[in-house]
Amino acid sequence: METVLNAVDRQIPLRLEGRDLIPYKGMYENPPKQRKAQPYFGYVKHGDSKLLASIDDAIEKTGLKDGMCVSFHHHLRNGDGVVNLVMQHIADKGIKDIKIAPSALFPVHEPLVELMDAGVVTSIEGSMNGPVGDAVSHGRMQKLTVLRSHGGRVRAIQAGDIKVDVAFIAAPVADKEGNCNGRYGKNACGSLGYPKVDSFYAKKVVVVTDNLVEYPCTPMIISSPYVDHVVEVDSIGSHEMIVSGTTKVATDPLKLSIAQNAVDLMVHTGIFRDGMTFQAGAGGIALATTKILGDLLEEKGLVADFINGGVTQHVVDIYYKGCTKKIFNGQSFDVASIKDLNENPDHIEINPDYYANPWNKGCLANIQDAVVLGATEIDVDFNVNVNTHSDGRLLHGIGGHQDTAPGAKLSMMTVPLFRKKNPIIRERVTNVTTPCHATDAIVTDMGIAINPARTDLLKKLEGSPIKLIDINELKDMAYAETGTPEEPEFGDRIVTLIEYRDGSALDVVRQLRE
Amino acid sequence: METVLNAVDRQIPLRLEGRDLIPYKGMYENPPKQRKAQPYFGYVKHGDSKLLASIDDAIEKTGLKDGMCVSFHHHLRNGDGVVNLVMQHIADKGIKDIKIAPSALFPVHEPLVELMDAGVVTSIEGSMNGPVGDAVSHGRMQKLTVLRSHGGRVRAIQAGDIKVDVAFIAAPVADKEGNCNGRYGKNACGSLGYPKVDSFYAKKVVVVTDNLVEYPCTPMIISSPYVDHVVEVDSIGSHEMIVSGTTKVATDPLKLSIAQNAVDLMVHTGIFRDGMTFQAGAGGIALATTKILGDLLEEKGLVADFINGGVTQHVVDIYYKGCTKKIFNGQSFDVASIKDLNENPDHIEINPDYYANPWNKGCLANIQDAVVLGATEIDVDFNVNVNTHSDGRLLHGIGGHQDTAPGAKLSMMTVPLFRKKNPIIRERVTNVTTPCHATDAIVTDMGIAINPARTDLLKKLEGSPIKLIDINELKDMAYAETGTPEEPEFGDRIVTLIEYRDGSALDVVRQLRE
Repeated sequence: METVLNAVDRQIPLRLEGRDLIPYKGMYENPPKQRKAQPYFGYVKHGDSKLLASIDDAIEKTGLKDGMCVSFHHHLRNGDGVVNLVMQHIADKGIKDIKIAPSALFPVHEPLVELMDAGVVTSIEGSMNGPVGDAVSHGRMQKLTVLRSHGGRVRAIQAGDIKVDVAFIAAPVADKEGNCNGRYGKNACGSLGYPKVDSFYAKKVVVVTDNLVEYPCTPMIISSPYVDHVVEVDSIGSHEMIVSGTTKVATDPLKLSIAQNAVDLMVHTGIFRDGMTFQAGAGGIALATTKILGDLLEEKGLVADFINGGVTQHVVDIYYKGCTKKIFNGQSFDVASIKDLNENPDHIEINPDYYANPWNKGCLANIQDAVVLGATEIDVDFNVNVNTHSDGRLLHGIGGHQDTAPGAKLSMMTVPLFRKKNPIIRERVTNVTTPCHATDAIVTDMGIAINPARTDLLKKLEGSPIKLIDINELKDMAYAETGTPEEPEFGDRIVTLIEYRDGSALDVVRQLRE
Repeated sequence: METVLNAVDRQIPLRLEGRDLIPYKGMYENPPKQRKAQPYFGYVKHGDSKLLASIDDAIEKTGLKDGMCVSFHHHLRNGDGVVNLVMQHIADKGIKDIKIAPSALFPVHEPLVELMDAGVVTSIEGSMNGPVGDAVSHGRMQKLTVLRSHGGRVRAIQAGDIKVDVAFIAAPVADKEGNCNGRYGKNACGSLGYPKVDSFYAKKVVVVTDNLVEYPCTPMIISSPYVDHVVEVDSIGSHEMIVSGTTKVATDPLKLSIAQNAVDLMVHTGIFRDGMTFQAGAGGIALATTKILGDLLEEKGLVADFINGGVTQHVVDIYYKGCTKKIFNGQSFDVASIKDLNENPDHIEINPDYYANPWNKGCLANIQDAVVLGATEIDVDFNVNVNTHSDGRLLHGIGGHQDTAPGAKLSMMTVPLFRKKNPIIRERVTNVTTPCHATDAIVTDMGIAINPARTDLLKKLEGSPIKLIDINELKDMAYAETGTPEEPEFGDRIVTLIEYRDGSALDVVRQLRE
């Protein structure tokens, strides 16, 4: 297999399972070709009803068969009930060799592993959090899988890299024409932006809802002219799992000190100011950072232009303190964020094309001031891994990591030096998710390492009270606690391609040697 | 020139100025091909500003040159200041042979006639109301012009029949990234849906605004990922002309009696009921119909599911009486409708893809109960003309006429029998805008003629107090007042193609013999 070394020092095959790969060359080195793929016209004969009685009917009406690609969205997160439901119906019909193109899968989707073993699911292009990714690491998927960021997925669909035959859109509320949103109903999930691009590009679009309401269902986040069929089911998910689990602010002192360091860094780099902009996230440290930042804005009487998220109660609170003018909501993480999205005209629902697509005329991620991100591993070259654990298992998707880090004026990786016996800061990451070129600062409890390429930031921090530390020193401190980490043993087979947001090849994940 | 007779008895050339024409065969006889045209990727380099200092800069940056196609929208109606501004700058640069693809032009755009004479503008594909259309009738345009409906225009752009090089979007409020809407500012126009399809399909998109506000400008009706450049100008139009002129309810008894007849017809055909839906319009009779309908809904304690429009104070009033659940706003005709659009979550902004595109998975126009339309002429076969006057001059666009008439359960042409010495009901219309197959009822002050093809309506009206009258009798009554009309004299040259909403050729307009 002919390989070349890409710009993050990874060997990339030039051809892989029938695909020509473009090795990653830099953050903005693979701009778009001139034109997008051709979308499909749809046509519903005058007077025809879109309502179908069952998922089975939808499978038949859309002509779903062996070898096709189906897509799903992940606004319902670990509470999603639609992926398993639809895939089981597909399996029951004896259909094989299906590629799934979800925006993300979660532990709840573990039943897919059995369908992989049975040859029903033979590839996944999308985030695989938990058991499905783990199974891929162990070689249980027949064909290559592909990981893409939020923006990379939109780009890939628009470019025709992902060709979706049938998009199934889980909708907390919908009407008989297919207008739907995520805002109301027993399984409300708030924002419903992820499947927007699927509705524009899939050959066939099926809305699956447990809350069919009178026409017109507004706001029309997914719009009826882009929906072929509507199926009413008993339940699309489990509400408690949709709106919980990722929104607990860190309480342990170590994480709080990391969050405080991140806010201090924003202050001393001049990012913290009237009119600043910020991307909030879920996860304990990110939430704590959001909270501390909000308190500081209030204390200083400053107002952010917008906070983008991953919206939680904490972001909503900042708005009602008068400390941000607008909220952008690409994903709603709790009941408070859903409620506010429904009531507050300054709380704006966005989709990942708007927020993260690298191949459009300017996405939100490209103009943000600061973003707080996490990592499973970071290496001394500032490459970041969020996909695999240090034991080599693929357990996480990319999310917006790869979109927000390059775009923001200050991307911060907020991490402890080590977790249990595993160093987070290390010589070399198991896999590269976000390239060193996009990583500005590593914020730990023991100090902050600035990417030496960011001489502008280093200059700003001269004479500041920020405790700067060399990344190698952080690594040494980590290793002192954990010892030199053991490398996982991989076989030769490549099971997953990690794409950079622009479609170039950043890294590959190999099957674990058993 | 080889011609064939189409389904409304018009001779259609099979080839015209390099185009292959498909003769109109019936309302739903030309469904879409499988795929749409390829949209363009756009790309704004990280950190680049979209703001340009002038229209001239926009012309240069977009590479606008001889032979290209530029587009505009008509939400500013006869108060638009952007078409003339941009076209004069194009002319001043010595650029020639430009095709304009506006959603509509108005009398204010008369300066284009001079640019036609000068060879700057050589074709228009879009509605030409007033002097521009008149000039086309007199042969002053070098190349063929094309008329399309609201939905037909979206269809044509998606299909690649219209290839827009540069779309100029007049925006009452916008931010530096190009997010914009029509809701605020000194030239607020309300809804801003017409240019949505241009933003998706044009090679380059320029937002022109006289109200540049802080990012983010919300709601983002046109969205920044689809905008290349933003230009701030002193003024995009004249507000008084934008929001006035078409919203005076008829007061003369003849028009009021027509409006009352239209409402009576809705009642006795069973269209008037709890949960009914209705498309409102501008123009005296349509407004009077809306008002009478609203009063009757209130009197009977009934509630419509939605009213779609052309929104005016009268529609808003019906909502606040509790007599319609929602308002769809494709175009705002007065200050009251703009104000309510900004404040009322049940007042929904839509675009012409949603409302009228015949080649999508079900547009709003296809599911409405009743629509009230006008006409310049109607013939005894139930063909309707709204484009040309009986003297042969092209003076009006198609608007939503051709979209709403086929789709609605009851399409009503509300007309007086004659205007001055000109019979409206006549033997044969000068041109066909809306085919007989889509025309259900001709509602006049002297009685109502039902299309004999609508046997279902005729059955429902048996024994009702509705005064039915044969269309030939209406024609005879008209001719008795006016005498047999004189036919205009045409030359051979075809100056305008009238497309049916699905792209098939409904009729052609010939140059007037001087």
